[in-house]
Amino acid sequence: MSVTERVLRFISPSPEEVKKVNSAASALLRRIERECTTLGIKAEPVLVGSVSKGTYIDPDIDIFIAFDRSYPLREVISTGLKIGHRILYAGKERYAEHPYVSGQFEGFRVDIVPCYRIEQGERIITAVDRSPLHTKFVNEHLSEGKRDEVRLLRAFMKSAGIYGSQVAVKGFSGYVCELLVIRFGSFQGVLEFFSSSKGKISLDIHGYSKRAFKDPFVIVDPVDQERNAGAAVSTENLAKMRVLSREYLKNPQESYFVWGLERKQQRMRRDTELTLFKIPKPQIVDDIVFPQAEKFASALWNILDQGGFQPLNFVISVGEFVEVLVEHRFSKTPRFSVHQGPPADSERTCDFIEKYIKVRGHVGPYVVGDRIYFDVPEEPKIIEDFVRERIRSYNIGKNLEEMKEKLTVESLKHVRYAGDTLRKFYSRNILPDKDWKFSRQRRPPEEPDDRPS
Amino acid sequence: MSVTERVLRFISPSPEEVKKVNSAASALLRRIERECTTLGIKAEPVLVGSVSKGTYIDPDIDIFIAFDRSYPLREVISTGLKIGHRILYAGKERYAEHPYVSGQFEGFRVDIVPCYRIEQGERIITAVDRSPLHTKFVNEHLSEGKRDEVRLLRAFMKSAGIYGSQVAVKGFSGYVCELLVIRFGSFQGVLEFFSSSKGKISLDIHGYSKRAFKDPFVIVDPVDQERNAGAAVSTENLAKMRVLSREYLKNPQESYFVWGLERKQQRMRRDTELTLFKIPKPQIVDDIVFPQAEKFASALWNILDQGGFQPLNFVISVGEFVEVLVEHRFSKTPRFSVHQGPPADSERTCDFIEKYIKVRGHVGPYVVGDRIYFDVPEEPKIIEDFVRERIRSYNIGKNLEEMKEKLTVESLKHVRYAGDTLRKFYSRNILPDKDWKFSRQRRPPEEPDDRPS
Repeated sequence: MSVTERVLRFISPSPEEVKKVNSAASALLRRIERECTTLGIKAEPVLVGSVSKGTYIDPDIDIFIAFDRSYPLREVISTGLKIGHRILYAGKERYAEHPYVSGQFEGFRVDIVPCYRIEQGERIITAVDRSPLHTKFVNEHLSEGKRDEVRLLRAFMKSAGIYGSQVAVKGFSGYVCELLVIRFGSFQGVLEFFSSSKGKISLDIHGYSKRAFKDPFVIVDPVDQERNAGAAVSTENLAKMRVLSREYLKNPQESYFVWGLERKQQRMRRDTELTLFKIPKPQIVDDIVFPQAEKFASALWNILDQGGFQPLNFVISVGEFVEVLVEHRFSKTPRFSVHQGPPADSERTCDFIEKYIKVRGHVGPYVVGDRIYFDVPEEPKIIEDFVRERIRSYNIGKNLEEMKEKLTVESLKHVRYAGDTLRKFYSRNILPDKDWKFSRQRRPPEEPDDRPS
Repeated sequence: MSVTERVLRFISPSPEEVKKVNSAASALLRRIERECTTLGIKAEPVLVGSVSKGTYIDPDIDIFIAFDRSYPLREVISTGLKIGHRILYAGKERYAEHPYVSGQFEGFRVDIVPCYRIEQGERIITAVDRSPLHTKFVNEHLSEGKRDEVRLLRAFMKSAGIYGSQVAVKGFSGYVCELLVIRFGSFQGVLEFFSSSKGKISLDIHGYSKRAFKDPFVIVDPVDQERNAGAAVSTENLAKMRVLSREYLKNPQESYFVWGLERKQQRMRRDTELTLFKIPKPQIVDDIVFPQAEKFASALWNILDQGGFQPLNFVISVGEFVEVLVEHRFSKTPRFSVHQGPPADSERTCDFIEKYIKVRGHVGPYVVGDRIYFDVPEEPKIIEDFVRERIRSYNIGKNLEEMKEKLTVESLKHVRYAGDTLRKFYSRNILPDKDWKFSRQRRPPEEPDDRPS
């Protein structure tokens, strides 16, 4: 039995599972339809997402309530939420671009999302309005037999940590997986494409988009030629996909399809410093927090670099806290700072010399190239004090700014830290653990050990 | 009395001194003339250098024996040396482009140098053939009263460590000092020019040179329009001259004219490492050793940079040894090395992974940007071992290469080192010690203290 055949035995749903999820979805569609009729509104439920296309691994049910364009957005949302709460009794409101209801039904996770009904070529009103058209396109172009190919690709990408278009992942969406299989015919075909592709990637199934996209990975959305369905994919994730495709094709193994299990942790004695910067997470959606977390990380990097701490690596994690872990080479600022003066042919050298010659313990003025310099003694600052002082002058995003005062700084030399961030740092390797086999367990049994060794 | 008037009382020769040096020079000229007659050769002695132009501070006597162009070079040299030795009884042979005789006469240092007699516009045969023409030009264009102006400029530049065109200095020659005073009329005029000049400097007294010189400081040699008399001047020394001119004009002080005394040593606690690299000096002239010493220093800088030692500053010194002192931040190589792999879209990622995945204790492959990386554990190496290993693959010049095996490496944390190089490192500041006055002593009394504090 080939590797993919074995994998599919574990990741494909059984006929019973298919029946169960389809019947739950149908029941939900009927109930929502009934609610629409009762309320007398021009709206209808549409099954979207991976269940609607039969390409799921985790059978989450996504149902959109598509309203007629004549309704104002406020009414679409309030009515949509009302119906959602009636159907999902313990449902909670969540937010993407606009709110929706998320809950459980017959053991499945269900999202009920209000949107507008649009036809191919019509202008969308909200970001989610295209989803029903995506379902339609995929079901028209992806034959029954190719659904398992999408499952394999999805599992492969999930395992690599490059699945999902949310900002915290910057990866390939389920829809992109489907388009790739439509374009290249099979899981194998997709991997062969990535392993031999060069530079920026630009795919267009219909081949008539006129737009020049700047993203590293472009796959034109066949229902909207103006949109790159792969816009979320980062350079790093494209790189991972290429390298892993090549490695897998050379030596196919089941471990490439395990998800929920992080890559094996790798530790070495590095004699570097690890410092964790933590800010409470504001109560807003991750897609808005994450870019701010990146601003935070980039501010920290700049500050540490300027302070002579020599940052080497960093990891961002958004959970209960916004956390940035930085590996750096020094724990204190140097005992002196180097002040570069104006070029020697500027009249301003006099003022520069007058200013620094007064500083007790100075060295200089000395000349390097065509400029003068002074070295000036500084009281060494520890990283915490230095960052606290400098971070004030950085804007780290609307919502994080308010939390800046609550910044904590911990050296991981002294604290036994057991969070996600450190684990992420230790499992940056992209290759899966080759020994893992599906035969032993269906899902990874436990969270990886996070105690520093 | 103005500062320059006071300084001139100390640096200008007294009428008795002038008489003494002139009579010594005349006696030498007569004796050499007699030797030429005796030998029956077409050659005549010419007084050149600062004594010939009356612009000296240190009255060294330079006499050239100008041979007729009909003689072959070998004969010029052998006859020139023979005469030199007859005149200077304890004379030693020294080498510039070709050998000459150096010795003492009536208490003065004397150089007797063979050359060819050329006329203005004729092609030179050896590098020194122009000197008699320089003397002629200066004596025709520099009035008696301006000689003290040249002395001031010479003393100012000597004091700043930017006097002399030899490779170890890369500064302004005595001839350039004379040309500058001819061009700008006075010491004050020269300083005003430098303090307000911008960018590259290009001076041409006659104003008809057609050549475009690339040097940072150009002053066309009026006896040879193809030659930049200031070609030796480095960017650093031009920068020093500009900054010091400006500082002096703002606040003229006698200390700007003291030479033989290095700038005041400045020390601060820097928490950095100082390592001295030493190679025995080959028995060749400094102008040939020095560029090789620079190659050696640049090789060391590269090696230390690649090894993660973080070089910060360096100083070269050529004496009994070729010494390079490097200030750096680390004394050992890191515990791991980072190996950058090929871009992700290259087929070579497979080989790269195969190679490093086998290394015990590796971290990776991980992705940064569009490339993959491995961190690999390394046994930390001390600077001495690391440099010894790597220096082999650098070429540090024909003569130093032979000495490479005799390299010694000393950490200045452990050795009480009392050499020139460390003193040079501690006295990189360009400003003179403001308190120094000529009234206390004519010359600096002693070598500066070199014990590390």
